[in-house]
Amino acid sequence: MSQTSPFFDTEFAEQFAQLLRWRRDVRHFDRRTVAEEDMRALMTCAALAPSVGNAQPWRFVRVRTPDTREALAAHVDGQSALAASHYTDQAQQDHYLSLKLHGLREAPELIAVFCDEQPEAGHGLGIATMHEMLRYSCVLAIHNLWLAARLRGIGLGWVSIVDPPAVHALLDVPATWSLIALLCIGYPADISDTPELEQRGWQQREPWTDRVFER
Amino acid sequence: MSQTSPFFDTEFAEQFAQLLRWRRDVRHFDRRTVAEEDMRALMTCAALAPSVGNAQPWRFVRVRTPDTREALAAHVDGQSALAASHYTDQAQQDHYLSLKLHGLREAPELIAVFCDEQPEAGHGLGIATMHEMLRYSCVLAIHNLWLAARLRGIGLGWVSIVDPPAVHALLDVPATWSLIALLCIGYPADISDTPELEQRGWQQREPWTDRVFER
Repeated sequence: MSQTSPFFDTEFAEQFAQLLRWRRDVRHFDRRTVAEEDMRALMTCAALAPSVGNAQPWRFVRVRTPDTREALAAHVDGQSALAASHYTDQAQQDHYLSLKLHGLREAPELIAVFCDEQPEAGHGLGIATMHEMLRYSCVLAIHNLWLAARLRGIGLGWVSIVDPPAVHALLDVPATWSLIALLCIGYPADISDTPELEQRGWQQREPWTDRVFER
Repeated sequence: MSQTSPFFDTEFAEQFAQLLRWRRDVRHFDRRTVAEEDMRALMTCAALAPSVGNAQPWRFVRVRTPDTREALAAHVDGQSALAASHYTDQAQQDHYLSLKLHGLREAPELIAVFCDEQPEAGHGLGIATMHEMLRYSCVLAIHNLWLAARLRGIGLGWVSIVDPPAVHALLDVPATWSLIALLCIGYPADISDTPELEQRGWQQREPWTDRVFER
């Protein structure tokens, strides 16, 4: 043990709950850049995530090339149009099409997060029956990054309207990696404690107590 | 917007980083019970997680029956013995067998987390091509719960050495649910800023910079 265990008081607990309440999935960014020092802080926090077998299977690909960014944005627009066509109810399709679902062209920073499905680290512990634990570990790292961003006033938008193999090919990453997320990072144009999909009438929050059962 | 956006200062940022550094996967619990008020606070925090389409697909099953608990513990012991047999290197197999990998018999609270793979909420948004986003949303909820526990001095251990269909049957949950995690919750016997698998020489942390790439 390298230092004394920290004590977190009730004020911290309340601030932490505030952080969770005010974390949003951001699709509207202003043009301010994110300092490289902040980007490093976010990735440092991400790497403190739990991982199965301590495998640390997350791989972060920072997209720095304008052409690559545009190719990703165009790909997501295409996939989103395809998803829209699946709504047979016309009003719902119109509603879907009215939503802004990504900020891939505006966000100053883009990170594609991949999972190494065959990491040497961890030596297979904990994944014999649930191999998906590697991917879940990457999700935990993203959440650390997300919260570390929000407390700095930096927003994050998680884009999932993608065809993972297409993004894999576009970014030319190793064959053992699988795509987990495409992240847009930057300063949000709006700040709210209400999810955008709730503000726009797509889906309300429901009581958490409806989701708890006993056995 | 229902209230003024909170400001998080650098002291909070440092405390948050401490929280991440001191969050552990806990397998050794003492016998103190967790107050029901705390359990409610943890589940409230979990429900503030992001979810794809705001689908809130997490389902928490609290295991309250001693027989069910023992059946789960016996199942995990069996799966762990099976996983051990896969290590052909004898020293590694012995090392694996020397690790304590769950506290299912000692932890005062057990929660099985499932994902509803066909939730009505969210109306399919964001999952046309990546259906796994529903499961990832449940992982995000678990991480909120994990951090909310740690800041209260409460430990959490995520058990993944299970055969998901067996646990599904054991807990008799709806057919559309899939198992994400088995969580042991209680006060930890030890507190450390170093992962147990690192303390025991299974797997060290590696530099996060090795996991960042550019395109």
